[in-house]
Amino acid sequence: MYPLGGHAYTVGMTGAPGGGKSTLSDRLIERARAAGGEIAVLAVDPSSPFTGGAILGDRVRMQGHATDPGVFIRSMASRGHLGGLALAVPEAIRVLDAAGFPWVVLETVGVGQVEVEVAGAADTTVVVVNPGWGDAVQANKAGLLEVADVLVINKADRPGVEETERDLVAMLDMSNLSGWRPPIVRTIASTGEGTDDLWDAISGHRAYLEGNGMLRERRSRRVAEEVERIVARRLEHRARQLCSGAAYERLHRDVLERRLDPYTAAGEIAAAGES
Amino acid sequence: MYPLGGHAYTVGMTGAPGGGKSTLSDRLIERARAAGGEIAVLAVDPSSPFTGGAILGDRVRMQGHATDPGVFIRSMASRGHLGGLALAVPEAIRVLDAAGFPWVVLETVGVGQVEVEVAGAADTTVVVVNPGWGDAVQANKAGLLEVADVLVINKADRPGVEETERDLVAMLDMSNLSGWRPPIVRTIASTGEGTDDLWDAISGHRAYLEGNGMLRERRSRRVAEEVERIVARRLEHRARQLCSGAAYERLHRDVLERRLDPYTAAGEIAAAGES
Repeated sequence: MYPLGGHAYTVGMTGAPGGGKSTLSDRLIERARAAGGEIAVLAVDPSSPFTGGAILGDRVRMQGHATDPGVFIRSMASRGHLGGLALAVPEAIRVLDAAGFPWVVLETVGVGQVEVEVAGAADTTVVVVNPGWGDAVQANKAGLLEVADVLVINKADRPGVEETERDLVAMLDMSNLSGWRPPIVRTIASTGEGTDDLWDAISGHRAYLEGNGMLRERRSRRVAEEVERIVARRLEHRARQLCSGAAYERLHRDVLERRLDPYTAAGEIAAAGES
Repeated sequence: MYPLGGHAYTVGMTGAPGGGKSTLSDRLIERARAAGGEIAVLAVDPSSPFTGGAILGDRVRMQGHATDPGVFIRSMASRGHLGGLALAVPEAIRVLDAAGFPWVVLETVGVGQVEVEVAGAADTTVVVVNPGWGDAVQANKAGLLEVADVLVINKADRPGVEETERDLVAMLDMSNLSGWRPPIVRTIASTGEGTDDLWDAISGHRAYLEGNGMLRERRSRRVAEEVERIVARRLEHRARQLCSGAAYERLHRDVLERRLDPYTAAGEIAAAGES
């Protein structure tokens, strides 16, 4: 399947829950369909680290596209395995890519580090905020801004939109931008207002990346990170294998009874695995 | 240092930001000091995955203890390395343990999966919610409840406390509890009300764990997980070493040009590392 791909353009979309990302995805679907292109949306939902239950969010709204073969929408849950998402998402994108979708939107639900990393691993990353967003994403404002290629203030008909834009401009002014400066787009996803501006901003960023060779560079870096992640995963699996058996049990007991510290024990286990 | 430890009892404390955890820690400090014990608080703060800046939260309030040698308070930031925290926190606890603190409170700022996991790796885990908490921690309610040994409704003088308690009771009723059922404690940390109840709930859980051998079992599992994590970390380091050099560059190019898929490439790299 892998040789078939390489043609899809991926758009990441992240922001605090309730910010209107899925409605915005919906608008992008309409926009892409109006332009004659097929489009896939992959909605990555957080889930409990323990029960594996996924919050499917507002996918119901998207059922308007259920009968359109040019639109594919799927939710993915992390099932508590944070590392798993980082491996599963590129695989899922590859399937959609090989299936011929020229556009793949990757939507993550939260603003946690993992969600931001997942959404940030796209060709163009859209960060969606709302008027008065500050409190909601306080903890990860800088992280969000650092992955943003396009900034969207959705629900722009609400009070506080001017302050929010000023806030974003100030943060952009303070950061060390070199080259691309993320445009700030106002949208009202519920009415569709601003969708064309968002589409233009995404297209503008795409043209920028394609024009200066940075698209290839980004993808090259992503592939390198993915391969490293897969290698690490294989080695982790090896670690779990090493952490079993009689020799391991003896070391574990030694650590519990404080005859050996955890790092020395791990060193012995790892060394045994490499020989 | 490791042989000196094994005597500290650790209390994890987690919940949504702004829930009053640091004030509650403050009250626990007072309570422990009144009982004549020394106590250390380790506040684990989230930070941007990119800039490494830490949000130090409300540590200022704790300066009342600054001159008391029986109290140790320290903030730790993740500096963007999620996996790093899982390794650094047990190390820090070991230092405090070896230094002779009989109580170590481990406070995490958020309700993300990592924060909950870190706080959950304590002898007794306290989950702090507020009246009307539902919306704030929607995404990880189940995960929070699953690590809770003691549930605290802080700011219990606010409206909605009855509904919140009913909500918690219902969730506990629905979960598959075997053995310990987390007590629900109401506190008003700002006035100190409920601190004794919280202290009693923690002591009760401790007595339960010590009485039936589960404390030893919990700690044994924690040590096993830590050793496995250290082994995995060493192997990850090995993965990064493997992902460099001429042979790796050739494979990377092959993947980029779609002559080779990422998994086959990773397999070749990992195999080279094991030989």
